[in-house]
Amino acid sequence: MRKADVVIIGGSAAGATAAISCSRRNPGKEIILIRKEKEELVPCGIPYIFGTLGSPQKNLMPDTALLNHGVNLFISTAEEINREKQFVYTDSGEQISYDKLILATGSSPMVLQIPGIDKENVFVVNKEVGYLQNMLDAVDRSKDIVIIGGGFVGAEFADECKKNRDNNVTIVETRPHCLQLAFDDEFCLEAETSLTKRGVKIIANEKVEAILGDNKVGKVRLSSGRELKADVVIVSIGVLPNVELAEKAGLRISASTKGIVVDRYQRVRGDSNIFACGDCAMKISYFSGKPIKAWLASIATGEARVAAANLFEICYHGLGTVGVFSTQIGNLAIGAAGLTQRQAEEEGYDIVVGEAKAPSRHPGGMPGAVPTSVKLMFSKNDGVMVGGEASGGTCVGEIINVISACLHHSMTAYEVSLFQMGTHPALCASPIAYQMVNAAEEAVAKLS
Amino acid sequence: MRKADVVIIGGSAAGATAAISCSRRNPGKEIILIRKEKEELVPCGIPYIFGTLGSPQKNLMPDTALLNHGVNLFISTAEEINREKQFVYTDSGEQISYDKLILATGSSPMVLQIPGIDKENVFVVNKEVGYLQNMLDAVDRSKDIVIIGGGFVGAEFADECKKNRDNNVTIVETRPHCLQLAFDDEFCLEAETSLTKRGVKIIANEKVEAILGDNKVGKVRLSSGRELKADVVIVSIGVLPNVELAEKAGLRISASTKGIVVDRYQRVRGDSNIFACGDCAMKISYFSGKPIKAWLASIATGEARVAAANLFEICYHGLGTVGVFSTQIGNLAIGAAGLTQRQAEEEGYDIVVGEAKAPSRHPGGMPGAVPTSVKLMFSKNDGVMVGGEASGGTCVGEIINVISACLHHSMTAYEVSLFQMGTHPALCASPIAYQMVNAAEEAVAKLS
Repeated sequence: MRKADVVIIGGSAAGATAAISCSRRNPGKEIILIRKEKEELVPCGIPYIFGTLGSPQKNLMPDTALLNHGVNLFISTAEEINREKQFVYTDSGEQISYDKLILATGSSPMVLQIPGIDKENVFVVNKEVGYLQNMLDAVDRSKDIVIIGGGFVGAEFADECKKNRDNNVTIVETRPHCLQLAFDDEFCLEAETSLTKRGVKIIANEKVEAILGDNKVGKVRLSSGRELKADVVIVSIGVLPNVELAEKAGLRISASTKGIVVDRYQRVRGDSNIFACGDCAMKISYFSGKPIKAWLASIATGEARVAAANLFEICYHGLGTVGVFSTQIGNLAIGAAGLTQRQAEEEGYDIVVGEAKAPSRHPGGMPGAVPTSVKLMFSKNDGVMVGGEASGGTCVGEIINVISACLHHSMTAYEVSLFQMGTHPALCASPIAYQMVNAAEEAVAKLS
Repeated sequence: MRKADVVIIGGSAAGATAAISCSRRNPGKEIILIRKEKEELVPCGIPYIFGTLGSPQKNLMPDTALLNHGVNLFISTAEEINREKQFVYTDSGEQISYDKLILATGSSPMVLQIPGIDKENVFVVNKEVGYLQNMLDAVDRSKDIVIIGGGFVGAEFADECKKNRDNNVTIVETRPHCLQLAFDDEFCLEAETSLTKRGVKIIANEKVEAILGDNKVGKVRLSSGRELKADVVIVSIGVLPNVELAEKAGLRISASTKGIVVDRYQRVRGDSNIFACGDCAMKISYFSGKPIKAWLASIATGEARVAAANLFEICYHGLGTVGVFSTQIGNLAIGAAGLTQRQAEEEGYDIVVGEAKAPSRHPGGMPGAVPTSVKLMFSKNDGVMVGGEASGGTCVGEIINVISACLHHSMTAYEVSLFQMGTHPALCASPIAYQMVNAAEEAVAKLS
């Protein structure tokens, strides 16, 4: 039997981060990371295999950081956890004992339960090199691609599948807009315009009812009765936490979000030696404290760091999930942090909104300047910021993190309106027009 | 006599921001902005006239925002303030009465007191369209350019003067490194490497002692005796606050930094109807509370917003100057927020440093990925962050603002190591490798 101080199951964003973080915080502890795949994919990079990167091999997570931190890699599948004796059985017959165990088993794509879903050339977004290579080959050979679900993954796949190919790509989305769970309508519309410019067709308010064809997919039938030609179908309707191993070990699973129940220390209910983080773990909202569904690598890494910090001594309670997202559709970068206006109003907030738009560089004639918007939501009662959205140039990727930092400290519209930022002509908006500050100032005027 | 509720003197970053902010916060108030120039330049854009933009006309600040906010523009020079009767005399013979007055008179380039400084083709960086056009023409005709002073302005001018020109550009800097007042040595070295790659020569630890030639400059002589050919000399050794008007009105001037003495409300000492902001106003450090020299448009706009907020009722005290800077030299973006390691140690802090480097996009093969570093400084005693520096891709422009947001709330290494950020392959580093968080985690390990 192999012995380790810390065993981590799962090697994607959460598992790898937990391993590195644990090694930094606990030098000298023996850490074993068990993962299924010899080569681990960068999870958020998967859509980019289909256009920008061109192959799964170009989207691998290097093991360098793990190895540099002295983490021992075990390529096998964890089959069972013996909580009493504190060891993990693997499918290769290994028994690995742990002092502390971190579950980072991730999530798997949800499968649509409709007729024809088993046909050839119908894909979900599995995180496996071989599977994705087959999918890429099918996309390369295809003429008509139908993507079921217009969330982040669907929108990014649509964008990428159009790159360097003469094909038809259609997104079928059940909601009125793509990306509607993450953004307010005006931002969804911007993303849709960007997709449409790329040549992607969007069919909203529609369900796919059946996948038609002999062995291979030939068409999909929508609930309206309309049929679309399709030689490849990509199903991207969300994910479900991988909790079989945890369930088998008697750990509690959240009824509402299907994640392993954890406390604010990322410790599982009823076993102080086991932690869970990432897609497999239950999350609660930073705002309401209610369970939420938010499966993102960036969230996973945050939880992994909390888990690693608390392993041997509780020293940090997580804040709950702020929820910070970004993507790029065509040339449009778009991001959100915290609650959207719709979500905030659904929660019961009386909301004051501030908005500002300015070129991403200044003066507006600087090369690469792109109109960039920020929208901020504040509670009318105490002026505290509860969310922000941004769209425009690539700077949005970090603008949304500036907003996240303000959310971390419940900054008010007043405070944000006097925020001290740096700006430079080649990198940022003008300091006079800096969007976050001007949006906050607009909100201040409405609050007083 | 013309009457206004608020009179603002100066139309650059501070004045324009004060006007817009005042209009937003005080709808209905009559605001007059007095400025000298018919066309106002974007101050931080001035170096970019010499390469990227190509003309002063492409670096003008549009008056649209001012006019949309109902601000009345007066193009003339304020010559005197009558504090007792509360009006301003202009050189056009106008008297404008004020209820509240905001001084945003800016700064002027320091002149080097050496022989030959008056020769033709020796320039400072004046913020005037006509002057800069002449300077641009001279640069276009020149073969050998010597830039005296390797701060932000000098380094940016050097970079721009090399663009699309076959010339020799040399920076002469008295300190061991360019940009040394803003960055620690390793970042200065990166910037210098970037300048050198562009073909800029850097002569450090040297003073220019004299400018030689007949009417026109022909050479400069260094204190070592060495002579450099020069048909254009650009002097960029810093600025001095424009305080003549304030001095004439009997307002107090800081002995150490030469700015108009203001309190934390940006109100001048001894006259509650007058505020000052921007380069003309004294600044105190967010950290030590001591007067500091920091003349930047972004700082100016922050002070302008504080002044505007406090005009009719004190409602906000400024935090002091955090100091957030960024620039781009060649393809290298570089920024700093708060104290550098050197400054922190000079203040007396016992400092723990955390550093992390990762590609600006992920996986590293994503187009546009550039190695991007973050260095964070924390006080060893309480773990609170006191500064950060970053270099690499254009994302640095906003990364430095994420760091600024953390500084605004005295976040500890511990808190920053668990920061919740969003990341996306085309926009940011990997969430596993996100530089700010990893730098903080490295510091945590050293703190505990």
